[in-house]
Amino acid sequence: MRTKEEYIQGLSKMKRNIYFNGELIDRTDEMQMNCLNVMGTTFDEAAKPENQELMTAISHLTGERINRFTHIHQNTDDLHKKQDMTRMLCQKVGGCIQRCMGIDAVNAIYNVSYEADKMNNGATEYHENFKKWLTRFQTEDLVGCCAQTDVKGDRMLRPADQPNPGAYVYIKERLKDGIVVEGCKLHISEASVADEVMVVPTRALRPEDKDYAVAFAVPGDWDGLTQVATIHNFRPREHFKRGFMPGSTDSYMIFENCFIPWERVFLAGEHQHGGINALLFALFHRHSYSGCKPAIGDIVLGAAALAAEVNNVHKASHIREKLSELIMITELGYAAGYTASDLGSPKVFMPGKGLVPYGPGSYIPHSIYCNVGRCLTGESVFREAEILCDIAGGVVATFPHEKDFMNPETKDLLLKYTQRNPNMPVEDQAQFWRYLGDALCSAKGGIHNVGGFHGGGSPVMEQIAITTQYDIESRKKLVRHIAGMSDGDREVLAKKKD
Amino acid sequence: MRTKEEYIQGLSKMKRNIYFNGELIDRTDEMQMNCLNVMGTTFDEAAKPENQELMTAISHLTGERINRFTHIHQNTDDLHKKQDMTRMLCQKVGGCIQRCMGIDAVNAIYNVSYEADKMNNGATEYHENFKKWLTRFQTEDLVGCCAQTDVKGDRMLRPADQPNPGAYVYIKERLKDGIVVEGCKLHISEASVADEVMVVPTRALRPEDKDYAVAFAVPGDWDGLTQVATIHNFRPREHFKRGFMPGSTDSYMIFENCFIPWERVFLAGEHQHGGINALLFALFHRHSYSGCKPAIGDIVLGAAALAAEVNNVHKASHIREKLSELIMITELGYAAGYTASDLGSPKVFMPGKGLVPYGPGSYIPHSIYCNVGRCLTGESVFREAEILCDIAGGVVATFPHEKDFMNPETKDLLLKYTQRNPNMPVEDQAQFWRYLGDALCSAKGGIHNVGGFHGGGSPVMEQIAITTQYDIESRKKLVRHIAGMSDGDREVLAKKKD
Amino acid sequence: MRTKEEYIQGLSKMKRNIYFNGELIDRTDEMQMNCLNVMGTTFDEAAKPENQELMTAISHLTGERINRFTHIHQNTDDLHKKQDMTRMLCQKVGGCIQRCMGIDAVNAIYNVSYEADKMNNGATEYHENFKKWLTRFQTEDLVGCCAQTDVKGDRMLRPADQPNPGAYVYIKERLKDGIVVEGCKLHISEASVADEVMVVPTRALRPEDKDYAVAFAVPGDWDGLTQVATIHNFRPREHFKRGFMPGSTDSYMIFENCFIPWERVFLAGEHQHGGINALLFALFHRHSYSGCKPAIGDIVLGAAALAAEVNNVHKASHIREKLSELIMITELGYAAGYTASDLGSPKVFMPGKGLVPYGPGSYIPHSIYCNVGRCLTGESVFREAEILCDIAGGVVATFPHEKDFMNPETKDLLLKYTQRNPNMPVEDQAQFWRYLGDALCSAKGGIHNVGGFHGGGSPVMEQIAITTQYDIESRKKLVRHIAGMSDGDREVLAKKKD
Amino acid sequence: MRTKEEYIQGLSKMKRNIYFNGELIDRTDEMQMNCLNVMGTTFDEAAKPENQELMTAISHLTGERINRFTHIHQNTDDLHKKQDMTRMLCQKVGGCIQRCMGIDAVNAIYNVSYEADKMNNGATEYHENFKKWLTRFQTEDLVGCCAQTDVKGDRMLRPADQPNPGAYVYIKERLKDGIVVEGCKLHISEASVADEVMVVPTRALRPEDKDYAVAFAVPGDWDGLTQVATIHNFRPREHFKRGFMPGSTDSYMIFENCFIPWERVFLAGEHQHGGINALLFALFHRHSYSGCKPAIGDIVLGAAALAAEVNNVHKASHIREKLSELIMITELGYAAGYTASDLGSPKVFMPGKGLVPYGPGSYIPHSIYCNVGRCLTGESVFREAEILCDIAGGVVATFPHEKDFMNPETKDLLLKYTQRNPNMPVEDQAQFWRYLGDALCSAKGGIHNVGGFHGGGSPVMEQIAITTQYDIESRKKLVRHIAGMSDGDREVLAKKKD
Repeated sequence: MRTKEEYIQGLSKMKRNIYFNGELIDRTDEMQMNCLNVMGTTFDEAAKPENQELMTAISHLTGERINRFTHIHQNTDDLHKKQDMTRMLCQKVGGCIQRCMGIDAVNAIYNVSYEADKMNNGATEYHENFKKWLTRFQTEDLVGCCAQTDVKGDRMLRPADQPNPGAYVYIKERLKDGIVVEGCKLHISEASVADEVMVVPTRALRPEDKDYAVAFAVPGDWDGLTQVATIHNFRPREHFKRGFMPGSTDSYMIFENCFIPWERVFLAGEHQHGGINALLFALFHRHSYSGCKPAIGDIVLGAAALAAEVNNVHKASHIREKLSELIMITELGYAAGYTASDLGSPKVFMPGKGLVPYGPGSYIPHSIYCNVGRCLTGESVFREAEILCDIAGGVVATFPHEKDFMNPETKDLLLKYTQRNPNMPVEDQAQFWRYLGDALCSAKGGIHNVGGFHGGGSPVMEQIAITTQYDIESRKKLVRHIAGMSDGDREVLAKKKD
Repeated sequence: MRTKEEYIQGLSKMKRNIYFNGELIDRTDEMQMNCLNVMGTTFDEAAKPENQELMTAISHLTGERINRFTHIHQNTDDLHKKQDMTRMLCQKVGGCIQRCMGIDAVNAIYNVSYEADKMNNGATEYHENFKKWLTRFQTEDLVGCCAQTDVKGDRMLRPADQPNPGAYVYIKERLKDGIVVEGCKLHISEASVADEVMVVPTRALRPEDKDYAVAFAVPGDWDGLTQVATIHNFRPREHFKRGFMPGSTDSYMIFENCFIPWERVFLAGEHQHGGINALLFALFHRHSYSGCKPAIGDIVLGAAALAAEVNNVHKASHIREKLSELIMITELGYAAGYTASDLGSPKVFMPGKGLVPYGPGSYIPHSIYCNVGRCLTGESVFREAEILCDIAGGVVATFPHEKDFMNPETKDLLLKYTQRNPNMPVEDQAQFWRYLGDALCSAKGGIHNVGGFHGGGSPVMEQIAITTQYDIESRKKLVRHIAGMSDGDREVLAKKKD
Repeated sequence: MRTKEEYIQGLSKMKRNIYFNGELIDRTDEMQMNCLNVMGTTFDEAAKPENQELMTAISHLTGERINRFTHIHQNTDDLHKKQDMTRMLCQKVGGCIQRCMGIDAVNAIYNVSYEADKMNNGATEYHENFKKWLTRFQTEDLVGCCAQTDVKGDRMLRPADQPNPGAYVYIKERLKDGIVVEGCKLHISEASVADEVMVVPTRALRPEDKDYAVAFAVPGDWDGLTQVATIHNFRPREHFKRGFMPGSTDSYMIFENCFIPWERVFLAGEHQHGGINALLFALFHRHSYSGCKPAIGDIVLGAAALAAEVNNVHKASHIREKLSELIMITELGYAAGYTASDLGSPKVFMPGKGLVPYGPGSYIPHSIYCNVGRCLTGESVFREAEILCDIAGGVVATFPHEKDFMNPETKDLLLKYTQRNPNMPVEDQAQFWRYLGDALCSAKGGIHNVGGFHGGGSPVMEQIAITTQYDIESRKKLVRHIAGMSDGDREVLAKKKD
Repeated sequence: MRTKEEYIQGLSKMKRNIYFNGELIDRTDEMQMNCLNVMGTTFDEAAKPENQELMTAISHLTGERINRFTHIHQNTDDLHKKQDMTRMLCQKVGGCIQRCMGIDAVNAIYNVSYEADKMNNGATEYHENFKKWLTRFQTEDLVGCCAQTDVKGDRMLRPADQPNPGAYVYIKERLKDGIVVEGCKLHISEASVADEVMVVPTRALRPEDKDYAVAFAVPGDWDGLTQVATIHNFRPREHFKRGFMPGSTDSYMIFENCFIPWERVFLAGEHQHGGINALLFALFHRHSYSGCKPAIGDIVLGAAALAAEVNNVHKASHIREKLSELIMITELGYAAGYTASDLGSPKVFMPGKGLVPYGPGSYIPHSIYCNVGRCLTGESVFREAEILCDIAGGVVATFPHEKDFMNPETKDLLLKYTQRNPNMPVEDQAQFWRYLGDALCSAKGGIHNVGGFHGGGSPVMEQIAITTQYDIESRKKLVRHIAGMSDGDREVLAKKKD
């Protein structure tokens, strides 16, 4: 396993193909450092003996100990640990830990490449190629990101019907040694700090969309790939103590005549499995959200409780109600993920068939529980911001800038008028308002909300997954029986698996 | 284990001490039959071989197979099965299965009586007496109810400060052979169809409230006990097919100079454990709600889906959104209970100490997850009714009475104008509206909503439990660390057990 | 103007054509008396000198003083008074005053018949016929109801496409002297206690639906008309003081080969105006809701405040929050109606044209404000019930029956345990719980909720009206201007009339 | 009346007493220009003939035509016009128009100074002094701001009990020629671009708080006054067309040994009227919100409708629901203000007395309607943001920076992948996402949300005003009557003036 320093050194050697606000930048540009510190935490913490159980695993391919972020889930315990690892790390960095994209993509492709080969009766070697790629990914402890969301062009048209064929990434040409792809993936978190980029389809596909059923992996600086990144940081802190400064990035990833050799291609035309790949990555990723959203809920709860304390109103009964609401969102989201882990199995949901075996046996979390949990926490993002705003009061919006607290003309006056809770150092109160101002009133704060709402699939995507997969028919039978309707006399038993 | 018939026969032999609308009634009065059918289901189903795993258990006292409703939870698997048994039975009867009060009370008293004896250094024999009582309870397969909620008089005063000492049930006199109690418990579900009544305290108690720290068990027709019952049934069905007609009851239980011999007394003055007894019964009962509320959610979902189908609008996208919301409430509530079961242990939460061992080793579900689940489902009751009303339309309120469908003058005309979905028999459509009218527009329907909201503790009680028990301090530390506050540099790790 | 007694006497002479639960009943059947008392209030109050301004008006047809419920709105002041009269009366009877259907229907037909004649270039005399009918309606102080909602059959099909042509009431035959109609209207409030029934279309119509563009008025016992009624009463009160017992009714109104002479026909084939008739009645009726829903909000607020007082928790801060929420719903609903009245004009909204003159000059309330107000109060029905349930506690569901308070065996015990607030007579507390039990836990209570949600058009109908009529384009221009989009440089001014 | 240029020239001559991020800045600093453009709009528009009715008035002091922002409301028509003027201007600048603080403060002080003099039996000349000051304010067309909110120190302590006496601005010394004040007001919008600052109390006061009952007006650069400002702008636009760039500012206003001559003092010790001054400014300001929040709702609606159109999903039914929700919030807020204007009178609410005459006869909007409207729109802020986020999708968070659209290496590729709706120029689509990114994902956007929630009083302040002032007792009487309680037989009539 690598250290944070080795990871950063690796990035520093990569080709410049990332644009930011009109300039080509290095991956180790100052703007990216907060983001690298977040990602670096996944190396630092994995190296600590006390975290060995939670953050590392034994590779089922090599038998070596690896960082859990590169692991294929072998059982429900692996699913539990992935959820808990994610929560622990997100608590530490006060937000998205960023590396989950990689683990979720490898677990999805691992299963899909296997089934595609099986359907092709051995005419393809996607799975063997993927295992080779994965062995290196695990051994070299690489950071992977997942490029899923296409720009999608006209939302009323399916992929093959778009006037711009690149509205979804597609196979432009099939060559003897590989394929040529074109298109653009957007909102791709952490792509500018990733070693490897995995590309997967974004939606269910029809036979005529087969050129859109494509999955592959390339280094982040691959020929034919250009990134246009946005990078999100809080205001720099010069005077106030630093605390931990989380950063994050997103990229538009543009593929132009981009050649991918067969050994890096894991799906190329199997439209049925293209759709499953899309769903399966989303499913694993919603499971990740059952770790990160509770952690973000922990941060929101801590911030709300501190805001009440700084304002010295923490004993008021309406504060209790609001904290309780935050805890409910957080722990219901966690419980959903916990249940999804515990009921995990090597199966996926197929319309009309229910849960059926899929892939070579690795574990997949229960879909309904992943979806109800992610939907709840996604829909709660703006309510959480409202509660924070409500308890904090207007000061988060109007708190003076840092340098006003450094200027001797104003410093003491400002501190005098910042004092609220007589039992807390005023510098701490100032520090807290500054942090909360960053969280609630900054570009990064707003982006965090949008990401929390839409990331991993907007609530409407989860609603569709839930109603498509849930066994509503059996519930109708229950009511037919009770209401005395004509076919209501059949036995219906509770089944927790639907 | 008994049969339903033996159970009813047992009730028929009990003394008449139940008033209903001004009259003394028999326990097997016609008004009670729907309720007895519900309770009877717990005997019928337990007798089926396919339900043996779920509905029966091996007594840890006798080694005999017993109905699970009389069992003390020995491990997390018992907790899982209790949740699933409750959901299955509530699905069958389309509502409350009613027998959970008994299992929740025996599990609470089992632990509390043990600890009270321990605190008293053997000066009391509550636990041994309780085990003797419990042995008979298991062996004779008795139905128990739990009388917890006191009338409470002036809500601004604690028990010992009330002008009416009976505002909370209390020990009026201590005699050599037992105690004399007085007071009134209300909202006591299923008391009029129970064999045995367990009485437990309703709230935390101060030293001066010690006479209110009293727990005991007596038959439902004990001398000195009078019940005033309300009984809830849907409209009788004469023409329409019967389906399943659920009934339920609640009693005011009035104790006047009521003597309880020591062998039936399990707590008598130990105020600390009185408060724990109150919380512990509530906790077990909120765990029961993680089985019954999802079942009721299943019924609501089935009814909403059928309403959409009768109206032939089941393919509209707004229907999908509403069904999805119902599923979310249901499965988040289930997941909370699942997690509470899986993280169960022989421990209770103590303020300032966290989870500490309590009782002789039986299993208690995790409090935070029981509470967040129950709070969610309790707060959703009226929203669920709104969704049903929204999808059904006005017809649930104005659908003609049954006899208008029997009168030849109006029958055919009404059926002609009842037809909506052309693919469903019109009689079924009529039958469905009649059922839904009962559910949404009846005394029983309204009572069901109030019970779903307040039963097992109103949402505010769960909020208090949540904020009192949750480790908010550790979340504040997370934020102090990230914000750079003065004492924010300590390590804080995610702990799922708080 | 008539007295209540004259009104009831009039009903007593009508033909028996109303079925209730399988029996033909008189209009003055005991079941209907609570309902007649409500309707009677509109006569009693109009006779009081202090109510002359609010409850009577000068007919623009005859110059005589008439009951305002039969009046055509001549100006915005009439609209204001109709709103305030409705609120005042609904406060008095603690719910729906029932007579608004008539005033809303006459105002709609008055305008539509005029425009249909105009379109027909004098080939029809709908308006003159209607004025003759209306003169009698005003002079004889009749109670009118409005039969609008059709059974609608298959919701996926428009009127002319239904397999059952009577799914919407239609002109089956055109004769020299009149028309023959067939079909069934349902959810028709107060039809069983009305003198005259006005029938209007229920939706927008296509040219091929022209036989469904039919409006007419007949006495409630007209040949060819059968009613199947449901009648809604609280539990009878024998022991407790009576207070005011509101009742309400709804009918299925079935027309079979029903002949309507031309002088009673006000629309017969003009599909364009059929749709406007539907919308216009709905609009006037939503304006009525801006009077009745605030009154019901007043009742809910009063009940919630009393529940808090009986429980002696009225000083808790969470009570303040909940009462404040109730007041907000109520007064926002009232303010919407107030604004709709004040901005009223002799105009209706036409798609693509905005507000255009319509009818002979009577006043129509502003559509957007009628709709936002009605939608808010409709969507709040279940939330209001939840707040009541929350503050009241479980006692509303389990409070003993009246006769248990009359039985000397239980009476004193029950009163002893009913006492909560030491400063309020216990009989008042009992009386209050009994009333609130009727409101929250009865068939009538549930029906009241369904009616409050769907009556006058479900929230979704108001949403459609709002988005269809609101000037969204001008708001897009505002943003185009600010965002610097290509056509965003045009001037856009605030217009309150949109 | 002045021009925008004269206004800016006036500011340019003021003394530098404003700190921004550690530096003393001029009032015409580049950072402030967007803000000055907003304020300048109030001069530009008032000069247009077509706006004369709406934006100007005839001074009741001088008989001259003045900008309405300096006017004392003489009747309900003035209140209506103030609301409509505010909405029109806020629509133009896409947010807060900023000048309402002045008009709301002058109207509050105008009344309070009169009543304080009356109470003092002519011993003070506050009102005459204020009229002199106001004459100049009107004649010179000055921009006023209002410094109300104190830092408040420990929220558990009242003013006179605070360890830091300056936690609320107070009279430190009374001199022959005037008073010396000390303390700090914060969140003071537009203070850095105002000519004059009016200072008023922030809360109800006890007799012992009398030194906190102080109101006065001074120029923004007065000796003894230091401002520490935060200034809020969107990202500068270099490539994209400019549109309109709104800016805003807030100041901490620190008074140190600040001398105020008597002719500028309008209250100095009259604690009863200090509290009324606080409430009255808040009331006038909540009335302003009935103009600005609907305008902001118009902008949100326009943005949501455009986002749907860019995404080409504007015909989906869920979009209709969301737009309808936005319209409801907006027009209910407008209707509340409209009703408050129409029911305005020269009266204020006094606890226990209801509405009583106050001041020399100028018009005050109805308090209940101001409060319910402001509370609704304040509580909707985060929901509005959620709807925008929901419809827009993730692109608002990850849309590339402006310079990436200027760089020839990336420009065409980005435009290619920005195209969604085929019927809208792609540059417009880019321009729109950039604007929406500013609105949802920027410091200014977050500050706008906090301001919309807390400005003019947080929702909890409106709830307190509502429940304190509403006639809840009369509603209880209604229910007592209906329920048959002992004193429920009195007549209760609907009163809209409650």
